[in-house]
Amino acid sequence: MRKYSAILGNLGNTCDRFCGSYKDNLSSLEMLKQAGKIDGISGIELVGTWDIRPDNVSEMQKALDDLGFACVSIIPDLFADKMWCRGSLSCRDWNVRNKAMEYMRRMCDIAHEMNCEIINLWPGQDGYDYPLQGDLLDERKYLTENIAFIANEYPKLRFALEYKAKEPRTHSYLARMADTLLVSLQTGCDNVGVTLDIGHAFLGGENIAESVVLAKQAGDKLFHMHFNDNYKSWDDDMIVGSIHSIEYIELLYWLDECGYDRWFSMDQYPYREDAAGAISESVNWLKSFDAILSFNRIAIGTAIKMGDAVKTSKLMRELIFKS
Amino acid sequence: MRKYSAILGNLGNTCDRFCGSYKDNLSSLEMLKQAGKIDGISGIELVGTWDIRPDNVSEMQKALDDLGFACVSIIPDLFADKMWCRGSLSCRDWNVRNKAMEYMRRMCDIAHEMNCEIINLWPGQDGYDYPLQGDLLDERKYLTENIAFIANEYPKLRFALEYKAKEPRTHSYLARMADTLLVSLQTGCDNVGVTLDIGHAFLGGENIAESVVLAKQAGDKLFHMHFNDNYKSWDDDMIVGSIHSIEYIELLYWLDECGYDRWFSMDQYPYREDAAGAISESVNWLKSFDAILSFNRIAIGTAIKMGDAVKTSKLMRELIFKS
Amino acid sequence: MRKYSAILGNLGNTCDRFCGSYKDNLSSLEMLKQAGKIDGISGIELVGTWDIRPDNVSEMQKALDDLGFACVSIIPDLFADKMWCRGSLSCRDWNVRNKAMEYMRRMCDIAHEMNCEIINLWPGQDGYDYPLQGDLLDERKYLTENIAFIANEYPKLRFALEYKAKEPRTHSYLARMADTLLVSLQTGCDNVGVTLDIGHAFLGGENIAESVVLAKQAGDKLFHMHFNDNYKSWDDDMIVGSIHSIEYIELLYWLDECGYDRWFSMDQYPYREDAAGAISESVNWLKSFDAILSFNRIAIGTAIKMGDAVKTSKLMRELIFKS
Amino acid sequence: MRKYSAILGNLGNTCDRFCGSYKDNLSSLEMLKQAGKIDGISGIELVGTWDIRPDNVSEMQKALDDLGFACVSIIPDLFADKMWCRGSLSCRDWNVRNKAMEYMRRMCDIAHEMNCEIINLWPGQDGYDYPLQGDLLDERKYLTENIAFIANEYPKLRFALEYKAKEPRTHSYLARMADTLLVSLQTGCDNVGVTLDIGHAFLGGENIAESVVLAKQAGDKLFHMHFNDNYKSWDDDMIVGSIHSIEYIELLYWLDECGYDRWFSMDQYPYREDAAGAISESVNWLKSFDAILSFNRIAIGTAIKMGDAVKTSKLMRELIFKS
Repeated sequence: MRKYSAILGNLGNTCDRFCGSYKDNLSSLEMLKQAGKIDGISGIELVGTWDIRPDNVSEMQKALDDLGFACVSIIPDLFADKMWCRGSLSCRDWNVRNKAMEYMRRMCDIAHEMNCEIINLWPGQDGYDYPLQGDLLDERKYLTENIAFIANEYPKLRFALEYKAKEPRTHSYLARMADTLLVSLQTGCDNVGVTLDIGHAFLGGENIAESVVLAKQAGDKLFHMHFNDNYKSWDDDMIVGSIHSIEYIELLYWLDECGYDRWFSMDQYPYREDAAGAISESVNWLKSFDAILSFNRIAIGTAIKMGDAVKTSKLMRELIFKS
Repeated sequence: MRKYSAILGNLGNTCDRFCGSYKDNLSSLEMLKQAGKIDGISGIELVGTWDIRPDNVSEMQKALDDLGFACVSIIPDLFADKMWCRGSLSCRDWNVRNKAMEYMRRMCDIAHEMNCEIINLWPGQDGYDYPLQGDLLDERKYLTENIAFIANEYPKLRFALEYKAKEPRTHSYLARMADTLLVSLQTGCDNVGVTLDIGHAFLGGENIAESVVLAKQAGDKLFHMHFNDNYKSWDDDMIVGSIHSIEYIELLYWLDECGYDRWFSMDQYPYREDAAGAISESVNWLKSFDAILSFNRIAIGTAIKMGDAVKTSKLMRELIFKS
Repeated sequence: MRKYSAILGNLGNTCDRFCGSYKDNLSSLEMLKQAGKIDGISGIELVGTWDIRPDNVSEMQKALDDLGFACVSIIPDLFADKMWCRGSLSCRDWNVRNKAMEYMRRMCDIAHEMNCEIINLWPGQDGYDYPLQGDLLDERKYLTENIAFIANEYPKLRFALEYKAKEPRTHSYLARMADTLLVSLQTGCDNVGVTLDIGHAFLGGENIAESVVLAKQAGDKLFHMHFNDNYKSWDDDMIVGSIHSIEYIELLYWLDECGYDRWFSMDQYPYREDAAGAISESVNWLKSFDAILSFNRIAIGTAIKMGDAVKTSKLMRELIFKS
Repeated sequence: MRKYSAILGNLGNTCDRFCGSYKDNLSSLEMLKQAGKIDGISGIELVGTWDIRPDNVSEMQKALDDLGFACVSIIPDLFADKMWCRGSLSCRDWNVRNKAMEYMRRMCDIAHEMNCEIINLWPGQDGYDYPLQGDLLDERKYLTENIAFIANEYPKLRFALEYKAKEPRTHSYLARMADTLLVSLQTGCDNVGVTLDIGHAFLGGENIAESVVLAKQAGDKLFHMHFNDNYKSWDDDMIVGSIHSIEYIELLYWLDECGYDRWFSMDQYPYREDAAGAISESVNWLKSFDAILSFNRIAIGTAIKMGDAVKTSKLMRELIFKS
């Protein structure tokens, strides 16, 4: 059984660098109420500072409990505060790295308190924009070491590194599945793995099914999943299935083959759309893809073993349009 | 009723710059026999020199007739002969341009002889590879003028300019729908329009439905269509529907809105696949997309008028998985 | 003699969808003071509402005069107000189109008042995000008609349409040079042309030199230029020359060949950089490229006529490294 | 001191999937004669079967000796023979994998015989084209295991895995630096590392300097380098420096920081250009970039430590245009 969840902030206001606000501001509790109305999701991811702080832990815990939501992950905010604008855990300024570590510890303490196992770590500002700007050896070393430090300090938590090739920097240090696996292995910590965000992987030119296999072969390192769709050239954060279809079916097949049994979390950015509706649609597309897979797993597995594109095309056409 | 066709050469041997031959060589007549076995196609496009020459017109005509195939277009070979390696109709060398025009006339005469209305003109070598290499004003002028000359000489033929952003050159003079429409308009000839190759449009970053609309608004300039699919970063020439789906449905909707009633021609490059099977699959995917559209045209049209992505997502999900 | 200018807002605060503020907020007059310190620029572009409104025209005019700046263009704000979030001049909602036209008229009146000839029109919200979302025929028609209406109402102004393939929408109606030229021609107005933003053209996969030539061949339609650099996959709005070099030299060559003698305006988005410094650097890179061109125009022109990539490589290598 | 070399086949005939031959066929010995005339190169890479076979080892060795060329690497031909069209070392067909291993051994024996230390292994056909086609877990395992087998059999050779995101397949199993490092680490063999081909890295969306750093941090795994340039969306195999410049300077800086002291080999595909001239130009651009670096290493290193894009822009502008 798949477990579906969503990032709370997906339900709030949206903006971009041109327009400061496409919707109305909502408090975390108001967003949570919206989330409660979405069919099929049973967990919530909380962004640090925005949704969850030392001062509102018990309030948020109660609100989650009231709605029957699990706290799927804490996402430390290492991207929205101007302080991290030249990097957080990798920043060349020792002072900033130190503050990032202190902040990480506060978030990990909250995770402990809430019995939340996953820290979803997206160091979005850690990277560079221009050639000759990144101090590549040192900054990459700081990042790896600091992740190792915190993972050793909190051995009961799982640190899921979320990669993304670019945005907000033109180049991120955690860019794609394979380089993030290298960092994960270099920490030497069993509790450091990877979050696969489908849109980030598309943006990075990955075949998402193979990304899952890479994580498996590096030692069962797929800790978490974020779902959305895009046109593959930018992180458009659209509804699952709005552009691609067969690639999701291939993904689900290999997730099962690789034994992934964790959360399927929706992570979108519905700039101009009804947020609850957009999240709901994503879950429903995934369920439709899953229905095709689960009723035809053997046929699909046989097609993969054969690798004949014409026969597989025929099979998929028949399965999709006759489901 | 859609009319489906295929380019004959799709059924032959394949190669790339690394491997000289993935399959066996077949003669045009052998390929034609293969084509005869593909369900649903009723027309054939012939590549000049390869398939059709002054000396084999009547033989080819008879072979087509025997199989009940219409000759959908002649595609002059302005790309495979080393002579055109620095351009054909746009070449800075007058001698080469002259030879290209002579060759074009031979192909147009054949088209007359075979009662084939369309010259599908893909000047694949006309472009440049390096910065500061193209003599941009002059070469673009030669191209436009020569197309105008030949279109005026053969007023009963329709010249469908096939654009493609790149390959074999890193930059083609006919790169995308809009610039090709500009050339078409600059010729001042009613019988000069455009071929929309889906994969070329994907490669060029176009939304294929909007490409159709652009051609409509420039004066009903969509003369011909080539179908295939790809990953949008290269002209992979894959089976229709193997990657994208909803975008084809949107395309078919706007083709109908714009009154397109010409050929739907398959143009693939099945490097390692059974060619007849690959062509057949493309036709079948198109038929499946068309079935969804034709049974739900009003619902889809209403969704477009509303423009609500969440509601459209729900509609498409229900139409696709319950068809 | 090149005339360099800058968009005033480039000097202000920056943000993205994750971080609401990377710098401090500055008023337009404070930004103007900063602009006054940048060597080499003699004109300023003002964004409507942000920088210029009916109520501050004379104050702004005086501030520009005091610093000796020409008002290069007014850029109507059709992108930052939530009201335009589903389009402005092309919006399917008549009410919104009407408001956009009223707003345009206010901006045009200001331009008259300030003796500013150029309205730089970037309809950034006019487009769509999802397949089956755009009402393509109608919305494109509204856009073209409304541009024609306003251009006819203000025949002394020049309307420079700024295209950009995407952002903030995943697809813009004015996407690339050639489709924008088509719209410009369809208005039938001599005073409707195009702004070429280098980064937008890179993003759209264009060769910027050829974009200039396209505008020339469509009837001298290049009205304005915005300069910046990027990695060609997104509008990174970086310092000119930070990534590319020879392509700028090719651009300058063809700008001269095509007789462009208007403004060279800097349009960047220095998220984390000193803004005045970033603008200043762009001007200086352009001057360096220009120095190479102006001292070697004949040699470069001859190389283009030859089209021999090896010889051109040798020439450029020697010119760049021995300049 | 940099050591420059070239791949012999770069000097021969060229083709693509449309045009079978842009130049004249040359024998390996004729190409070698051409190579002998290129200033600055002192080594040659040989492609298996094409250039070097068990039957011509001594002849080739003598020809290299006569010209004073080192044999830099043997590149086994796992891409040009139709036999490998569905993969070689990773092929799902045991028979094909076995033949690939036998072929590899023949190439390794030749390398021993010629005292050539590097096997440059590009498994170009090992990958897949369509979704649901790759048998991802098994094929990736076969590839890794077979590389480990051969590396253990030939412990005195260094196996430099050359990655490339796509072409001739739409997806290669060795796609980018980081995933290739993972394979290299998974073999457990010290003599398995990576070849960084600049154009392949550009194509894969990598910052080439960071690719070098990734290899360093994974345990000094950069074994070999191939140089060329492209537009970053395809492996255009153009002259170094024809598009990019500062990124090469950043690359050279980090190659030195990481202690790379092996070959700088030219790998181009001059479809329509004079091949010896194109190779020569690449070497000369690299020397020009190197001159800037070597005279200003401290200034550039300081700029990197600061990470201020405006100041670095000023520095690079002054260094490049006053060199």
